[in-house]
Amino acid sequence: MLDFVNDYSEGAHEKILLRLLETNMEKLSGYGTDQYCESAKQKIREVCECPEADIYFLVGGTQTNATVIDAILSQYEGVVAASTGHISTHEAGAIEASAHKVLAIPHKNGKITAKAVKQYFADFYADGNHEHMVFPGMVYISHPTEYGTLYSKKELEELSIVCHEYDAPLYLDGARLGYGLVSEENDVTLADIASLCDAFYIGGTKVGALCGEAVVFPKNNAPKHFMTTVKQHGALLAKGRVLGVQFDTLFTDNLYFEISKNAIKTADTLKQALKEKGYTFYIDSPTNQIFLVLEDERLKELEQKVAVSFWEKADDNHTIIRLATSWATKEEEIKALIEIL
Amino acid sequence: MLDFVNDYSEGAHEKILLRLLETNMEKLSGYGTDQYCESAKQKIREVCECPEADIYFLVGGTQTNATVIDAILSQYEGVVAASTGHISTHEAGAIEASAHKVLAIPHKNGKITAKAVKQYFADFYADGNHEHMVFPGMVYISHPTEYGTLYSKKELEELSIVCHEYDAPLYLDGARLGYGLVSEENDVTLADIASLCDAFYIGGTKVGALCGEAVVFPKNNAPKHFMTTVKQHGALLAKGRVLGVQFDTLFTDNLYFEISKNAIKTADTLKQALKEKGYTFYIDSPTNQIFLVLEDERLKELEQKVAVSFWEKADDNHTIIRLATSWATKEEEIKALIEIL
Amino acid sequence: MLDFVNDYSEGAHEKILLRLLETNMEKLSGYGTDQYCESAKQKIREVCECPEADIYFLVGGTQTNATVIDAILSQYEGVVAASTGHISTHEAGAIEASAHKVLAIPHKNGKITAKAVKQYFADFYADGNHEHMVFPGMVYISHPTEYGTLYSKKELEELSIVCHEYDAPLYLDGARLGYGLVSEENDVTLADIASLCDAFYIGGTKVGALCGEAVVFPKNNAPKHFMTTVKQHGALLAKGRVLGVQFDTLFTDNLYFEISKNAIKTADTLKQALKEKGYTFYIDSPTNQIFLVLEDERLKELEQKVAVSFWEKADDNHTIIRLATSWATKEEEIKALIEIL
Amino acid sequence: MLDFVNDYSEGAHEKILLRLLETNMEKLSGYGTDQYCESAKQKIREVCECPEADIYFLVGGTQTNATVIDAILSQYEGVVAASTGHISTHEAGAIEASAHKVLAIPHKNGKITAKAVKQYFADFYADGNHEHMVFPGMVYISHPTEYGTLYSKKELEELSIVCHEYDAPLYLDGARLGYGLVSEENDVTLADIASLCDAFYIGGTKVGALCGEAVVFPKNNAPKHFMTTVKQHGALLAKGRVLGVQFDTLFTDNLYFEISKNAIKTADTLKQALKEKGYTFYIDSPTNQIFLVLEDERLKELEQKVAVSFWEKADDNHTIIRLATSWATKEEEIKALIEIL
Repeated sequence: MLDFVNDYSEGAHEKILLRLLETNMEKLSGYGTDQYCESAKQKIREVCECPEADIYFLVGGTQTNATVIDAILSQYEGVVAASTGHISTHEAGAIEASAHKVLAIPHKNGKITAKAVKQYFADFYADGNHEHMVFPGMVYISHPTEYGTLYSKKELEELSIVCHEYDAPLYLDGARLGYGLVSEENDVTLADIASLCDAFYIGGTKVGALCGEAVVFPKNNAPKHFMTTVKQHGALLAKGRVLGVQFDTLFTDNLYFEISKNAIKTADTLKQALKEKGYTFYIDSPTNQIFLVLEDERLKELEQKVAVSFWEKADDNHTIIRLATSWATKEEEIKALIEIL
Repeated sequence: MLDFVNDYSEGAHEKILLRLLETNMEKLSGYGTDQYCESAKQKIREVCECPEADIYFLVGGTQTNATVIDAILSQYEGVVAASTGHISTHEAGAIEASAHKVLAIPHKNGKITAKAVKQYFADFYADGNHEHMVFPGMVYISHPTEYGTLYSKKELEELSIVCHEYDAPLYLDGARLGYGLVSEENDVTLADIASLCDAFYIGGTKVGALCGEAVVFPKNNAPKHFMTTVKQHGALLAKGRVLGVQFDTLFTDNLYFEISKNAIKTADTLKQALKEKGYTFYIDSPTNQIFLVLEDERLKELEQKVAVSFWEKADDNHTIIRLATSWATKEEEIKALIEIL
Repeated sequence: MLDFVNDYSEGAHEKILLRLLETNMEKLSGYGTDQYCESAKQKIREVCECPEADIYFLVGGTQTNATVIDAILSQYEGVVAASTGHISTHEAGAIEASAHKVLAIPHKNGKITAKAVKQYFADFYADGNHEHMVFPGMVYISHPTEYGTLYSKKELEELSIVCHEYDAPLYLDGARLGYGLVSEENDVTLADIASLCDAFYIGGTKVGALCGEAVVFPKNNAPKHFMTTVKQHGALLAKGRVLGVQFDTLFTDNLYFEISKNAIKTADTLKQALKEKGYTFYIDSPTNQIFLVLEDERLKELEQKVAVSFWEKADDNHTIIRLATSWATKEEEIKALIEIL
Repeated sequence: MLDFVNDYSEGAHEKILLRLLETNMEKLSGYGTDQYCESAKQKIREVCECPEADIYFLVGGTQTNATVIDAILSQYEGVVAASTGHISTHEAGAIEASAHKVLAIPHKNGKITAKAVKQYFADFYADGNHEHMVFPGMVYISHPTEYGTLYSKKELEELSIVCHEYDAPLYLDGARLGYGLVSEENDVTLADIASLCDAFYIGGTKVGALCGEAVVFPKNNAPKHFMTTVKQHGALLAKGRVLGVQFDTLFTDNLYFEISKNAIKTADTLKQALKEKGYTFYIDSPTNQIFLVLEDERLKELEQKVAVSFWEKADDNHTIIRLATSWATKEEEIKALIEIL
């Protein structure tokens, strides 16, 4: 049985596990104050070209989003996001649980536009009743998006300009950032992101780590006492080394980018084959997630041999599914899948 | 330089890391639905003698406390706890962040008594204004406590009776549960705890795991949709295997208890030596934490050679410090420390 | 200068003020336990034909919505509402401030349909990831809606059936309930509402009271310790008499309905005149709110002589405005306005 | 039956009701933007000698405390208060409901000292683990306290100095402020309070109003978008006039102070008689609340003829009760009570 359900089906890149083993019995200080965290931070600052960055390692994506957003917003503010954004849909109300509204706006292929954001802010401040409404206090985007799509550098620049015009920090959820950065379609670097965003996180969980996300406040601009907010959100790992060693390994010798390439390469091979075989794509995604529209009959057959991710019903007889590759996908898996298709 | 600062200075027991490595490339389903989680749950059910238990694996202690307490309480209820309880003091307001008050009551050596709890409930319901007050909705204890002390089986039974009299679940924070269970002074088994408490967690982070706590609702009594509450609290690990494999290993061949014994044995050796050398104990702790009162001068000297944990000032010239042993403490470390003392 | 800005521009019906004066120096017990509250509750139970109802008097609408919704929902649940619902838009995030998401669904003229609600529930439970999402725990409707429109008895019945099928309480925001009940288009009685909804409130602030909303749980189904939740939300008035006397007066000799009729009668006269003069209605509202589309030039002229409520821009040259009548609107005001139009 | 249960048993001072009646049919703008609110604010600014003050009218005390504290604190901060403070005990967890911990410290007769506060801050920042704890972000005092006691000007000055040393706003809950200001023991003026505190409220509910509390930020220092926070807390009255007219009346011709004197005068007469008759005072309170220790037998007798407030049990045979006078207490009531005693 083949398995293309998601990009977190395996454990971690072997180098990470070996490094955890190697450093295992060293006595290290807790809560992210150890030397591996420090080394990892330094390497991330370098690759992001932001030597002043404040960096924190948290455990998972939902946790990271909830913590960062809660730390940035005042209690009368909410966060603007695509209606398809992860925080809008699949975080079980974690943002609201810390008392902030997600101000959902329409998306296109998972993305929001500077124009739409500007309009939202303009409409808000034009409304005579806006003091009775939730202030839009920051903007959330995911890159790649939940549909695997990417913002161009120009789009990010435009978003950044609008956000700063309205004094609203721009925050980028990079759960799958590695896969975005090495996509052929991508024209954005980590340094660009660090320059254009006020906060972002580099996803580890889906890109080769056991767990862990690296939050970057690129301009020495971490919210005051951010560590306490992290603790309050239950996101402060006692053995911070677990995250430090992982990110230190991922950002040594370009490992993060190298393993990301594997996901893209295998996805591209698969997409090519799917095109040749005449499959219908639900969306044209340039990263590691492939969305197909299948007849339900065909899907039933397929599921005998390969596990896929149900996305949503397209109509009464068709279903949208997702196939995901990852850092761990092997070429022979792709071959085997193509044979089945 | 020796280091007795805490019990989470090393990584994980080697068996855990090797098992993570061994299972690393297996494709497993996410969010705790994999076979290792299932196997670990089964083993925990057996050792707790509660075949009906609902079990969940969360990442850390503060997170676990906040999630469990939020799930159990109604919005008009708070949690009764010792004023020294971890939730009262060192969780950065995580309980309040989910809108629940910690109702602190006096402690004795970190413990609360059934009598004091009963009095709290009785006074509450006797107060004509109690509808203007936070209802005591559950009781939190830690075992071992923050001072390393233990509840006797009789004390737990009494607490359990009072709690059930007032329809308030009894919840036990077992961050260091292993160290309590194997202490010579202990007369409580996991099965006792499962029988007397409505919820408890078996700590992994401080007892040999990289991270992870196993929450047990022993009577098939997990709060409704608990998994969603876990997700909302940012406590649902995508790669649930990381926790499953660890707890499966810890509960194979009694590993959890065996490695706990090491902490107690080394602590006992150390305590014996300290007594012989005439040191003043701040508290008589039967587990892996040793609290000493030192002259500040003496402390300064000591800190040249061994890292300890500052607890609090005793008076102008004396300081209370903590020495902690763990699953990882080596006999030669103890010997070296004793020589210095 | 005429003023049709809203329906809370005047103080209270004179009978209310006189009754407050008359009972002013009586010593009464606090927090809603006085005889006037009791009498008012009894009268409301009678007119709603629900002798078992639990009734509470709160101060304002946003407060009432936040308190009732927080009391009904579990922490993993949100409230389904029209995207135009008051809780979705103009309550400054009060629902989210008590940690619950507003699950906005599309509206038609401010109303939601049983079909759309059923679809929402069905889609939710069909989604394999629904445990990662906010559970729809109750349904909120306003009647009249924010656009002044009304649910028919049949529509309410259908909504009630769907809600109960999914075990989700149906809650009706009756900020302007009086104006709905006496509209010619209305076929719903208070008894119908009490029979079909699980909770609702009868608005006082906009229908002749200084302040105050009467929350009704018609089937003796107030959430446990609701009074404590009310207190926690800062919604428990020390001098409960202020609300008791007002609602007792409003529900004596049909005053609530009689004064509501004035709003409808004056609105109907106005609508007739507007139709005759060829004005464009934005929506066909059968209650006390009239929505017009005006050329901006025409609006500017009009605003010299009459204060209206800006609603939103229709296009670059047109604006939607609202004219509101109320219990206090005088026929001569209508006449004067018609002359201007 | 006499009634000395509390100071909110009657409605409002008659002048207030008459003024509400007089202005009743004026069309006024909503949400506190009317001329009566403006006039009341101006008069309060004058009597407080703080021409720059931001002033808001809220409805009740718990609501006011929760709103102000939530607006001032960051999400990682709590509020320091006496363990007997109203927010610590009788607000049903309203502060925690907006996610902030009440950091209770010991009291003396309901008061906290600058020394104790300073110690709390010093200990907090000295603790190496303070980043794992709730930051003390502001200090709450009540004046008069829940025991009717008063801070001297010197004590307030000292508190103010400590607070500002630690950058923590000082907030004064003046639910019964009028009764404090006119007590013979008092040496503090409204101008002193405005100068020494960063926020305070002037209580209306217990001092002659139907409801209402005037929040003063004396140095033009209202938290950003405070009105939105007020709305979010359900504390924004649509008919703001109800509060504006009341405070405008209370601060016209010194009415607030004049009616406060009545409470003090009647309380003083009563205290004198109690002393002469040899009653045991639980506490020496200089304002309108009198706390007595009575034998239970004696209390039973007394309760046949006069309603009092149960405070707490003193021991097995004695009870502490409270007698409260108010702006409305009549001399003949005092006479009648003295005869009974």
